[in-house]
Amino acid sequence: MDNNIKITYPSSEKVYMSGKLYPQLRVGMRKVRLTPTVDIVDGKKVVTENAPVYVYDTSGPYSDPEVEIDLRRGLPKLRSPWIAKRKPGDTQMALAKRGVITEEMEYVAIRENMNCAELGIDTHITPEFVRQEVAAGRAVIPANINHPEAEPMVIGTNFLVKINTNIGNSATTSGIEEEVEKAVWSCKWGGDTLMDLSTGDNIHETREWILRNCPVPVGTVPMYQAFEKVDGKAEDLTWEIFRDTLLEQCEQGVDYFTIHCGIRLKNVPLSQGRLTGMVSRGGSIISKWCMVHQQESFLYSHFDDICDICAKYDVAISLGDGLRPGSIHDANDAAQFAELDTMGELVERAWAKNVQAFIEGPGHVPMQKIRANMDRQIEKCHGAPFYTLGPLVTDIAPGYDHITSAIGASMIGWYGTAMLCYVTPKEHLALPEKDDVRTGVVTYKIAAHAADIAKGHPGATIRDNALSKARYEFRWKDQFNLALDPERALEYYKTSNDVEGRYCTMCGPNFCAARISHSLKDCDQ
Amino acid sequence: MDNNIKITYPSSEKVYMSGKLYPQLRVGMRKVRLTPTVDIVDGKKVVTENAPVYVYDTSGPYSDPEVEIDLRRGLPKLRSPWIAKRKPGDTQMALAKRGVITEEMEYVAIRENMNCAELGIDTHITPEFVRQEVAAGRAVIPANINHPEAEPMVIGTNFLVKINTNIGNSATTSGIEEEVEKAVWSCKWGGDTLMDLSTGDNIHETREWILRNCPVPVGTVPMYQAFEKVDGKAEDLTWEIFRDTLLEQCEQGVDYFTIHCGIRLKNVPLSQGRLTGMVSRGGSIISKWCMVHQQESFLYSHFDDICDICAKYDVAISLGDGLRPGSIHDANDAAQFAELDTMGELVERAWAKNVQAFIEGPGHVPMQKIRANMDRQIEKCHGAPFYTLGPLVTDIAPGYDHITSAIGASMIGWYGTAMLCYVTPKEHLALPEKDDVRTGVVTYKIAAHAADIAKGHPGATIRDNALSKARYEFRWKDQFNLALDPERALEYYKTSNDVEGRYCTMCGPNFCAARISHSLKDCDQ
Repeated sequence: MDNNIKITYPSSEKVYMSGKLYPQLRVGMRKVRLTPTVDIVDGKKVVTENAPVYVYDTSGPYSDPEVEIDLRRGLPKLRSPWIAKRKPGDTQMALAKRGVITEEMEYVAIRENMNCAELGIDTHITPEFVRQEVAAGRAVIPANINHPEAEPMVIGTNFLVKINTNIGNSATTSGIEEEVEKAVWSCKWGGDTLMDLSTGDNIHETREWILRNCPVPVGTVPMYQAFEKVDGKAEDLTWEIFRDTLLEQCEQGVDYFTIHCGIRLKNVPLSQGRLTGMVSRGGSIISKWCMVHQQESFLYSHFDDICDICAKYDVAISLGDGLRPGSIHDANDAAQFAELDTMGELVERAWAKNVQAFIEGPGHVPMQKIRANMDRQIEKCHGAPFYTLGPLVTDIAPGYDHITSAIGASMIGWYGTAMLCYVTPKEHLALPEKDDVRTGVVTYKIAAHAADIAKGHPGATIRDNALSKARYEFRWKDQFNLALDPERALEYYKTSNDVEGRYCTMCGPNFCAARISHSLKDCDQ
Repeated sequence: MDNNIKITYPSSEKVYMSGKLYPQLRVGMRKVRLTPTVDIVDGKKVVTENAPVYVYDTSGPYSDPEVEIDLRRGLPKLRSPWIAKRKPGDTQMALAKRGVITEEMEYVAIRENMNCAELGIDTHITPEFVRQEVAAGRAVIPANINHPEAEPMVIGTNFLVKINTNIGNSATTSGIEEEVEKAVWSCKWGGDTLMDLSTGDNIHETREWILRNCPVPVGTVPMYQAFEKVDGKAEDLTWEIFRDTLLEQCEQGVDYFTIHCGIRLKNVPLSQGRLTGMVSRGGSIISKWCMVHQQESFLYSHFDDICDICAKYDVAISLGDGLRPGSIHDANDAAQFAELDTMGELVERAWAKNVQAFIEGPGHVPMQKIRANMDRQIEKCHGAPFYTLGPLVTDIAPGYDHITSAIGASMIGWYGTAMLCYVTPKEHLALPEKDDVRTGVVTYKIAAHAADIAKGHPGATIRDNALSKARYEFRWKDQFNLALDPERALEYYKTSNDVEGRYCTMCGPNFCAARISHSLKDCDQ
């Protein structure tokens, strides 16, 4: 393994902003330098500077040339001094409810706003606003006290839409090195959180390597490890085995757990009339347990115990949707909505114990049924953040499901979903490889950003406008450097362009609309 | 050049349906054969057949093993006997208004419905309904009397959403052979119409090869060829040069013309305050002419003459949006909407001369502004079909603009747009190559299909349901064969799967949700 991975972006530098409440905070951002605009006015060259653009940066210390990376040692423990001061039970939510603005809260407020203040752009996102949102359960800052390497980030409908990346091996594929590489790769392209969904060998060790080297919050589905412990026999699972797995992962530093607590014994049969039954791994495992034992799931009956464990470490609970539809045919059915309603009940119990929580959502949903999902989630789950997989708006495009799902993701993000779980081109077909992670992350950055624009997030269009200005002025490199994937844009451009200058091979010199459009100025009466 | 190109699809056969009004009609479809479902019930193997799925087929004679293809000779002239009977002025619209149901109208009615009748699915699409829609201007059947090789298809909000593919060389790239290959390739993946946007050498000859070998309607932007005739000097253009170009292309068989008749002298300056001015090639050329001469454009002042020419050949007019926004910043501005309103005026003048017409739309539009485009188009353009490019919902993803635009395209398709102009991954960067055409077409098939589902088109979900059933039953090959791109799905699957059977490497045998979900049946009480 290359122990000194670095992340670089073209014409960019790593900059830090400090806090006001906590002046020692250093919130990393990426500053993209632009070239000036050059005009010819009355035969004279007029040069106008273009302001740099600040970009939300998930790459952590990997993109800071001052930080020496050593994967064997792990990343610097950014949050350790903040955590050291805290008392047992001091979750972000508990502190927020007591009126305390934590370092994490100011950090995310700065991070969300970028340099809007400098640009004179109004923003509703103050540290106090973050505190209120966390206190009310409308926002989550996943921050296990044992994962001090992670940079704080916030998940909530009144903030930038976030994206999650799934990685992880299965019994038949992929090793630790490859998974760590994918984790860093995800951070490079813009993944906000990372789920390690490993189900194969070395679950613990793989997770350890990822956690110690991951600058973003890490989530897991603890049931996967518990299930390994019982050799894949659902009926042999017990609360004790599950509890011990939770404790092990809390100790390691996992920031949020997907747990399918919303599956009720009475609701499992609702999935039997479906076209595609149950497609959630965690959901199907616990459903099997319920059916074999004809008992309410221990995830449901021990929910308060789960919360007590999570509160101790400030691990957030992501209420998994085990009954999510696996096909557009099954969307918005009784099974799906029964579970959603149960999750609405559970989220209030989590909050009562100061555990941060969010709600997972589908899945496969045709466009005309997406809004109903969001509306029902808001109604039944009391404003808890929604975290959706896609949804995929058609089932007929395996190989392109990053696209079928990005369509639904953009829409549900606009409607209010706080975090989007990415889908790669390999969905339904194989585990994602490194390039699939890149494609999946960039595709979901598009969906999230489109939603931010539609929601009117402060400053959301700064980058679009700077890129479009560069495009119109033939500042090709600026255009690429501002792109979500500068490398791919440049690579495609180079396939047929060897010209530098005021036209390209798409149109040739005569047919360039931008060129002709510029020349209209000279015709003005 | 390979003169005997064939198109094949796995486990598929070419079938034909005949008409009732016109029994000699042979409407081609693709029939996908499926394998049976095999269950074990009480230890016994139970085999249940799965009905084949009929798929809308744009591949024409290329996928019929009975037809011998020879590119030098061109495709069979399907429509010649129908056209032979007609009198001057007998456009589809003129006939529709007179109450005549043409062969083309029955053909498209059958094509839209596939085998819904056999499946007992109600449909509103009868030959008489098609006639009414064409008569009212709400639907267009582009069908130049000199392009008898094209199979009839219909563009209208009450029909399946269609997609258009742009190909064509520029002064600096690509030859005739490559363009013909791209044309056939587009038809293979599902392109409903094809625009030849060549601007380089051999415009006439390239178009001839494409027209004679294209089973779908072909569109052009005649201004490109006119502009070549004046060596790229906009001010030297004249009505006569443009008229002669139209006549030449009508004679050749072009089915629809994009003409930027909606640009008014008074509206050109509205583009000057924009971030990205004018990004339409045709629009910028005619605007330049207007500004230099300080005259109303000859495309506008000679609009009735244009209609007279088009009526003679039954060429449809696609009113081009020269003032479409080239960035989300410029979306829905005064320039764009002024032109849209002018197009609404022109479309009624086209209809008065029995010329079929549709309206082109943007471009770059953030999600929250898409609906206003559709609503205004419906209001101002009297129900004429809308034909949009994307729209792209963010500007920051060059290299991925097939995705940024598919998001907008799906939404506007749902809201009522009749045809979507595809965008490839090379948009803004280079001319598309063959694989970009494939990616662009499949991406837009996704958008169009998602819109069909959302609009409730009869039978739209048949393919989704069959594919999802195959997926849930581990009928991998059926799943791939039903996919929009069977080859890519299989290729991805093969990257890590060498197992045939009831699980795959994504989860391994123990973690397969579908497997566990199936096993729940045995737990039922």
